Amino acid sequence: MQSLQEKASAWSGVDAADAFAIDETNLFQKLGLQTFINLSTHFYTRVYDDEEEWFRSIFANSKKEEAIQNQYEFFVQRMGGPPLYSQRRGHPALIGRHRPFPVTHQAAERWLHHMEKALESTPDIDADSKVKMMNFFRHTAYFLVAGDELKNKKQEPSCKCKHGGCKSAAP
Amino acid sequence: MQSLQEKASAWSGVDAADAFAIDETNLFQKLGLQTFINLSTHFYTRVYDDEEEWFRSIFANSKKEEAIQNQYEFFVQRMGGPPLYSQRRGHPALIGRHRPFPVTHQAAERWLHHMEKALESTPDIDADSKVKMMNFFRHTAYFLVAGDELKNKKQEPSCKCKHGGCKSAAP
Repeated sequence: MQSLQEKASAWSGVDAADAFAIDETNLFQKLGLQTFINLSTHFYTRVYDDEEEWFRSIFANSKKEEAIQNQYEFFVQRMGGPPLYSQRRGHPALIGRHRPFPVTHQAAERWLHHMEKALESTPDIDADSKVKMMNFFRHTAYFLVAGDELKNKKQEPSCKCKHGGCKSAAP
Repeated sequence: MQSLQEKASAWSGVDAADAFAIDETNLFQKLGLQTFINLSTHFYTRVYDDEEEWFRSIFANSKKEEAIQNQYEFFVQRMGGPPLYSQRRGHPALIGRHRPFPVTHQAAERWLHHMEKALESTPDIDADSKVKMMNFFRHTAYFLVAGDELKNKKQEPSCKCKHGGCKSAAP
């Protein structure tokens, strides 16, 4: 059985070594807090205005300002900065926290499309950092697609049948 | 609705600030790789020999050596060292990866009991680091209990009834 990491690499086309090349330099020290805030603001401004309603609707129950803060605090923490995210919200728990959302291949590609455009709109991020970050994002997006599949596996039956559970032959 | 972080703090009795005090000093630099290997070896030696079968059986499908490596690589990565865990296995995704296991309050307490004993068996960890680590472990254990509850929420019915789904009135 393929691991989450193997699926993420196979589906994204990004090796783990390239995905985690973000750890070779301290991107937070290089780019600074404001750059991460700008990136996430550009990203979610696109997402909340997305002409593709199926994608925009995934975020309908979240406030844009909170989505921005959650994202840049996670990026800051993961890319060498202070653990802003965990201090406020606990472990990133990426798969667990994406559980309510349909993280499909299609949704991953739409997310990555907006992130690529957001990176282009953030001139303070140099070309080398952009490549590293995009590899990390691409690999992570498909890691979450792989995580999303866990929802459909090994579920306890949640059947509400009056005859008491559908493991046995149905009436 | 309480957040994962709020539940973790309420149930563990450890504030987020105390749980993430592990980030105030670089514990990896202070303690070194071998100390983390020793800690996880002591921990899993206890777990795999646990006289309480219900707890020991949770780990029955995992190899002890792999469990040790997974754990110390995560600790090293989270406590200031190189990202050994992510390079090999991807994001920690603590809730997602604990999904197959019954992370109950009782299991959390048994895990913490063994970890407290494992810390006592690892003399290279100074008293201040022990307190910080135990607060982190206690808060994290209950964060995962809170994460475990997500499994029982908002599930799609996985009913196998021949009459085609049990959302409607049962026959």
